[in-house]
Amino acid sequence: MKAGIVGATGYGGVELYRLLSSHAHIESITLYSSTQSGEGISESYSHLNTAQDQLQPLEPAAMKADLDVIFLATPAGVSSKLTPDLLGGKARVIDLSGDLRLSDQEVYTKWYKKEAAPQSVLQQAVYGLPEWNKESIQSAELIANPGCFPTAALLGLGPLIKEKLLDPSRIVIDAKTGVSGAGKNPNPLTHFAHTQENVQIYKVNQHQHIPEIEQQLTVWEKSMEPVSFSTHLIPMTRGIMTTMYGELKSSHSTEQLHDCLTASYRDQPFIRVRKPGHLPSTKDVYASNYCDIGVTVDDRTQRVTIVSVIDNLMKGAASQAVQNMNLAAGIEETTGLLHIPVYP
Amino acid sequence: MKAGIVGATGYGGVELYRLLSSHAHIESITLYSSTQSGEGISESYSHLNTAQDQLQPLEPAAMKADLDVIFLATPAGVSSKLTPDLLGGKARVIDLSGDLRLSDQEVYTKWYKKEAAPQSVLQQAVYGLPEWNKESIQSAELIANPGCFPTAALLGLGPLIKEKLLDPSRIVIDAKTGVSGAGKNPNPLTHFAHTQENVQIYKVNQHQHIPEIEQQLTVWEKSMEPVSFSTHLIPMTRGIMTTMYGELKSSHSTEQLHDCLTASYRDQPFIRVRKPGHLPSTKDVYASNYCDIGVTVDDRTQRVTIVSVIDNLMKGAASQAVQNMNLAAGIEETTGLLHIPVYP
Amino acid sequence: MKAGIVGATGYGGVELYRLLSSHAHIESITLYSSTQSGEGISESYSHLNTAQDQLQPLEPAAMKADLDVIFLATPAGVSSKLTPDLLGGKARVIDLSGDLRLSDQEVYTKWYKKEAAPQSVLQQAVYGLPEWNKESIQSAELIANPGCFPTAALLGLGPLIKEKLLDPSRIVIDAKTGVSGAGKNPNPLTHFAHTQENVQIYKVNQHQHIPEIEQQLTVWEKSMEPVSFSTHLIPMTRGIMTTMYGELKSSHSTEQLHDCLTASYRDQPFIRVRKPGHLPSTKDVYASNYCDIGVTVDDRTQRVTIVSVIDNLMKGAASQAVQNMNLAAGIEETTGLLHIPVYP
Amino acid sequence: MKAGIVGATGYGGVELYRLLSSHAHIESITLYSSTQSGEGISESYSHLNTAQDQLQPLEPAAMKADLDVIFLATPAGVSSKLTPDLLGGKARVIDLSGDLRLSDQEVYTKWYKKEAAPQSVLQQAVYGLPEWNKESIQSAELIANPGCFPTAALLGLGPLIKEKLLDPSRIVIDAKTGVSGAGKNPNPLTHFAHTQENVQIYKVNQHQHIPEIEQQLTVWEKSMEPVSFSTHLIPMTRGIMTTMYGELKSSHSTEQLHDCLTASYRDQPFIRVRKPGHLPSTKDVYASNYCDIGVTVDDRTQRVTIVSVIDNLMKGAASQAVQNMNLAAGIEETTGLLHIPVYP
Repeated sequence: MKAGIVGATGYGGVELYRLLSSHAHIESITLYSSTQSGEGISESYSHLNTAQDQLQPLEPAAMKADLDVIFLATPAGVSSKLTPDLLGGKARVIDLSGDLRLSDQEVYTKWYKKEAAPQSVLQQAVYGLPEWNKESIQSAELIANPGCFPTAALLGLGPLIKEKLLDPSRIVIDAKTGVSGAGKNPNPLTHFAHTQENVQIYKVNQHQHIPEIEQQLTVWEKSMEPVSFSTHLIPMTRGIMTTMYGELKSSHSTEQLHDCLTASYRDQPFIRVRKPGHLPSTKDVYASNYCDIGVTVDDRTQRVTIVSVIDNLMKGAASQAVQNMNLAAGIEETTGLLHIPVYP
Repeated sequence: MKAGIVGATGYGGVELYRLLSSHAHIESITLYSSTQSGEGISESYSHLNTAQDQLQPLEPAAMKADLDVIFLATPAGVSSKLTPDLLGGKARVIDLSGDLRLSDQEVYTKWYKKEAAPQSVLQQAVYGLPEWNKESIQSAELIANPGCFPTAALLGLGPLIKEKLLDPSRIVIDAKTGVSGAGKNPNPLTHFAHTQENVQIYKVNQHQHIPEIEQQLTVWEKSMEPVSFSTHLIPMTRGIMTTMYGELKSSHSTEQLHDCLTASYRDQPFIRVRKPGHLPSTKDVYASNYCDIGVTVDDRTQRVTIVSVIDNLMKGAASQAVQNMNLAAGIEETTGLLHIPVYP
Repeated sequence: MKAGIVGATGYGGVELYRLLSSHAHIESITLYSSTQSGEGISESYSHLNTAQDQLQPLEPAAMKADLDVIFLATPAGVSSKLTPDLLGGKARVIDLSGDLRLSDQEVYTKWYKKEAAPQSVLQQAVYGLPEWNKESIQSAELIANPGCFPTAALLGLGPLIKEKLLDPSRIVIDAKTGVSGAGKNPNPLTHFAHTQENVQIYKVNQHQHIPEIEQQLTVWEKSMEPVSFSTHLIPMTRGIMTTMYGELKSSHSTEQLHDCLTASYRDQPFIRVRKPGHLPSTKDVYASNYCDIGVTVDDRTQRVTIVSVIDNLMKGAASQAVQNMNLAAGIEETTGLLHIPVYP
Repeated sequence: MKAGIVGATGYGGVELYRLLSSHAHIESITLYSSTQSGEGISESYSHLNTAQDQLQPLEPAAMKADLDVIFLATPAGVSSKLTPDLLGGKARVIDLSGDLRLSDQEVYTKWYKKEAAPQSVLQQAVYGLPEWNKESIQSAELIANPGCFPTAALLGLGPLIKEKLLDPSRIVIDAKTGVSGAGKNPNPLTHFAHTQENVQIYKVNQHQHIPEIEQQLTVWEKSMEPVSFSTHLIPMTRGIMTTMYGELKSSHSTEQLHDCLTASYRDQPFIRVRKPGHLPSTKDVYASNYCDIGVTVDDRTQRVTIVSVIDNLMKGAASQAVQNMNLAAGIEETTGLLHIPVYP
């Protein structure tokens, strides 16, 4: 397959480049950048210093004719405009931004403060959460790759919500993320001297990933109500942990909830459910496509704590996009993705 | 005043030493260690490399006769046994461990898995949370210095719980802490290579600080029910953030809750309440005795998020102990404690 | 004394503010900023969130009449122009930038790529390295506060160079610094995701602190030749270690060199020389005005390794400036500076 | 090929496991541990939580008959005793410890303070630095995998020393390393709270890697004299930078030295020489087998600074061992090793 990466100079783009470079079915990778075309990618990233790949200007017509798959690793507001020009050709399109994830244009505009993509494009977009949407992805021309927080939150909550075990009006999601989630452009919040030895909480109940989480939860549970959601910036580069609190509708043990999770994910190669009483750490999935999940019930309160961890640049972005590509291309889902996490 | 520090070679002890060294009313500091007596403190801590102070063996009888204040910076299980021998003399005793904080011996034994202190000692111990207990502290001979998580959690929750604004059956506390809270002894969880680039969750609903939090919440609100409480180990040395989720009993705005906090803490020199819409970061209080607090209401859910931050070794341990000493000694509460946080 | 800080919103300025706030002889502190006047300092620094201090516009005439001491914590190129307007009044002026440290205008222009200060101003400026220049500082109206690397390097090399123990043609200085040395403005090199898990070497043999080091070494040793000097950016916020390599002119033991250091610094309250065989770490001096120094001789090569550590924002900038102020004002040198290092 | 890893529970062992798991020519991996046999590897390493691999007890006779390659990732002092029992069978043996690298038993005992391996074993051991010793490795039964510091130092110095460009009496090597180099066992120096915000210098001129470096330098340059060598512990997990200072025997430009490096390494797939004026950072090679090298000449001093970076667990240990295995097995040198560095 011939692949193209638009927005190749961002963290998501460069991570896609790394993954596709060792993917057995990828024959060529073309990098596109609207702002740095003509430069070599290694001018932006010295770890790629043998790479000769020159950044190309965007040419949608040629791209959709030549390429088999196009990844859009662009900031919010770009793919809503660009996607229409890329559809209808040979290429499957996988969008890593938030532009195509919300089916309701008004909701998008409310949370993203930007103009939504055309309704026709949104209708075509399949939500690319492979563990829950595999069949649709396999036949999709256009895939909306999930956000990093929604990936972690939904994979942890999915089984228990779908089985109606949790009160849909009392979900609290407390997320912790590494700094790479804020992207490559330097700003005061990502300055090392500010971030080191610091936990910062931001966008409480206002993060644009909230409607994405609620949209999918509502697919599983019609009576879903708004969730509480807070995000914390942690002095580390990669990793997301979502700690999720719910109330059981009726009494269940840790073992029973654990069984619900393992039953849901029995055939999912990238979900690892921890033994009862064990909860994962972010480093357990570093630089891998895994999502590790644990659950525990508190007998004193009959409340549940679910913990899920991912690498925000991998299962939360680039490697999940490759997983979606594999599915859409009809090749083995795990191709190019069976990395053991890097530790320590 | 002549001060003694028992357990001087731990992180709490060495931090007390630093604070007392520049305290205007401290005339001498004697360091005690049951395991390292005879050594100089700078053999354990090279940042103290000019210090001549030799670690002394414990002699309770002499200590209570000579000293004006004794700090116990010892692991759980030590002061329950040691305290009786230190009372009844000249010295006030301030215990930084968890041994004297819980009034109910059974509760202590259940959570700490150790034998409780004698009932007579527990009855004498005053809970040293100065912002809420100032009068009792001023006349106390024996003070149980609060735990680090309870300090952060209670200072954040206190005003809203006391004013009955929150549903007492639905409090969730999600705490994040730096690694120094685990103490000085190396172990696999505090190994740099394991902790770096990692968020680890531990002791979910099983932390020994839970009954301490609930005991004080119940003082404020008789119908208090058990809380959910989880702790996360963050790749930083110092700092605690507690993110707390509650449900409003009736509709209130962020501004109203902010006013409740500022009214409660108007005369408290070490509490800094953030403007509505602003939430603190742990680095805002680094190496200081401050507790910074912010609150926000989510209109979509009518749930409240309260955020409080402290330095776990300072307001969560050593500097709060000095604050208690000041109060008990009848000197100005802020003496030796008005450090501006170290930043960046 | 009434103090003014120009450039109060940089890291050096805010650190000066912290130190002066608890200085017994400082009656008032006025903060100046040419770009943010009218704002409160806590809008830039949330750790100062109780501070009401409003940033003032620069008014040199009023400043030199009203203030007793003015600190210039401004970027290179500012104080060369501003200083003439501040001299000749009541105020002593202490410049923390590099503008007034080099006596030779051409050398300044070569290394800083900027126009030099007027010759008359340069002649007035006293180099503020208190351990070596105390007498001149005590009578100075204008003090050039040393750079962070020169402070660490010169304090380590001084005694051995002055005593002609080292070959003046073979000095190698390998420096390691925390990220705060790069200042507050975010840029790609200080982005957390780039800096974490990274050692970066920069400005090899081209750092503008090189001529400052060589100028002072030449004071001690007329036949001094150019040094090799490299700087490494370390994933930490504060701290400088300079590892310095020299060749002995004639055979000496570690003990002899240690004795040379202790003899030189016997009366210097902020220099702590390590026992033979012991070398300091940067954290030994965190948030303090100390410079810790160790030395060791390699019997195999007859080469010397000298290691000195400072906190770059303290002894490398703000606290050394306060030390200079104390000396120039005729008060006890250690006033407001006897902080025990913060550890851990 | 069937591979065995002895000492599988250390950092080197677990990294070998990760690499071999995705190596196209490895059919099975057996893990051995003398202390934890019977346990599953995921009990020690939760990032491997799907692995079923049980740790086996050591059985040298069976191992050398069944396995094609045996990696010894054991502490110093183990393989000197174990190796004789593993030779003479089917298996090639690759030792990652320092036991077999020094050909002179006395030198080993002096620096390692342990009994040396038998002379016959030492004579059989080929020093596994592939870029300089490829032919010998290809026919070796026993390979001594180089130490992490020697790998970085020798790859940087090799070309210039071999070409006699540098004065052999004046080499200074200043190394910086991440904490994982200290191994998995927790100790006070690797405690997060101690290591964070700290640069620590240790084993100055006494590191056991010094004779290994000098032994190989002497192969290239008979008149080599002892080097100065210091190591610094940096608050990061992975990565080594060696900054090396030398004196030119005669005048050469940066470009000329750069050309010397590129000529030497033209056919080496894992050496990336930087353009003149560019120096590498440790993160440029994170989690990869690359060694990046840069060089610069100082016109003022005619001294050279050479900078080389590796990942200490990869090119400094596990991935270099796999590179040696590939060569010895007669398969493509880069098999299983073409990972792009993980960034950010």
